[in-house]
Amino acid sequence: MYPKPTLFTCLSPALLHLYDISDSIVVIIDVLRATSTIATALYNGASAIIPVASVERCIELGHQLNGITAGERDGKVAEGLAYGNSPFEYPREFIDNKLLVLTTTNGTKLLHMALDKNAKEIITGSFANLSAICDYLLKKNTNVILGCSAWKDRINIEDTLFAGAVINRIQHAFEINCDSSHLAQRLDISAESKYFEYLKVNNASHYRRLTAYGLEEDIKYCLTPDLANIVPLFIEDRLIIAKS
Amino acid sequence: MYPKPTLFTCLSPALLHLYDISDSIVVIIDVLRATSTIATALYNGASAIIPVASVERCIELGHQLNGITAGERDGKVAEGLAYGNSPFEYPREFIDNKLLVLTTTNGTKLLHMALDKNAKEIITGSFANLSAICDYLLKKNTNVILGCSAWKDRINIEDTLFAGAVINRIQHAFEINCDSSHLAQRLDISAESKYFEYLKVNNASHYRRLTAYGLEEDIKYCLTPDLANIVPLFIEDRLIIAKS
Repeated sequence: MYPKPTLFTCLSPALLHLYDISDSIVVIIDVLRATSTIATALYNGASAIIPVASVERCIELGHQLNGITAGERDGKVAEGLAYGNSPFEYPREFIDNKLLVLTTTNGTKLLHMALDKNAKEIITGSFANLSAICDYLLKKNTNVILGCSAWKDRINIEDTLFAGAVINRIQHAFEINCDSSHLAQRLDISAESKYFEYLKVNNASHYRRLTAYGLEEDIKYCLTPDLANIVPLFIEDRLIIAKS
Repeated sequence: MYPKPTLFTCLSPALLHLYDISDSIVVIIDVLRATSTIATALYNGASAIIPVASVERCIELGHQLNGITAGERDGKVAEGLAYGNSPFEYPREFIDNKLLVLTTTNGTKLLHMALDKNAKEIITGSFANLSAICDYLLKKNTNVILGCSAWKDRINIEDTLFAGAVINRIQHAFEINCDSSHLAQRLDISAESKYFEYLKVNNASHYRRLTAYGLEEDIKYCLTPDLANIVPLFIEDRLIIAKS
């Protein structure tokens, strides 16, 4: 029998340096809301999504490539951009066949870190594409790093929950020697698949932050599994749907 | 009513920079085995414990101050030192009225980081002194950072468990807006106070490491609450028993 591939969970970008990611698929997780919106826009027909770090770069690329510019700062559409970070802004009738240039803070930062550290492959995960991610990782049979984007490097409940949900579905196929993965699994078990209620009842820090902006419906969507079951794969400078 | 003091949990030394510790009591947690041994040696009468980073410094200070030198590397007493990291090496008949100079890796590193970042006060915590730590923090009524020493910056189960055990006992007295604290609390609840069995069943990474060195009895001791209920307080260069 061949040895199983390994799986590790990295709960904050500030811990990524502890892992050798060059032989791993890195799953970028930013549940509220970057990777949920990415899955949704691609699922609804976006031709590609280019994640960028700054508002300036977003405006520049949007202009150059005739793309939709999107991104928020402090819960509002950033000045100079056309749209925000909500998955509800990207239904098929709007985003089909369009290129989206998206700037987010935590998720984009981790993605670029993974790129700089020569990740073997980068995909993005969220509850919206939970099953697609699990199927993909099982099929690939390669080492995995579940990378939580966290909030300004502080570990958060929702990204950890998603990591746990993935591990609890695919652990049989991986060698897991990682206490952070165990923590994530326990959290997922505690939530009993009622992710929205779990965040609400436990007053998660990001739940509080986003509801203050009136975004409770966004949170509900972002914590519902399998509404946009595709795998966003990063190739060159953009995310596209991975071939299954 | 006055606002409650805050409590945060820092799950790895690599995340300590995210917290302002200058107005907080920092609890250094290194359950396997540094802070368990520290509590035990002080409880059994050691006059003080000087934690140092290197074996060289340990030898030097031990000589200068006529202290017991102790420390391990890779599960063995380090060359040039007299004793190891096991709490069983420090019964009253041996350590009473003696000065211990102790070198450990993870715990000492975090303690010195907290010192460099001007922590208001530094104490050390472990299951051996769980109740004493809780009583102390309740009485002090000051902001708290629970600092897990982790393993080479990787989050571990046992330190997180201890943080959770503390929080679940004292949360009523603190304002807790910290997802890492929530993770720790969930882990503690999962363990149902059977800490040793929990580490064993879940094959925690450090459990595996130490049992490979034949240290199962050490682990059992280090996961048993309240065997050495004093509070080690760092003053100048050494840990002594805090006045109650």
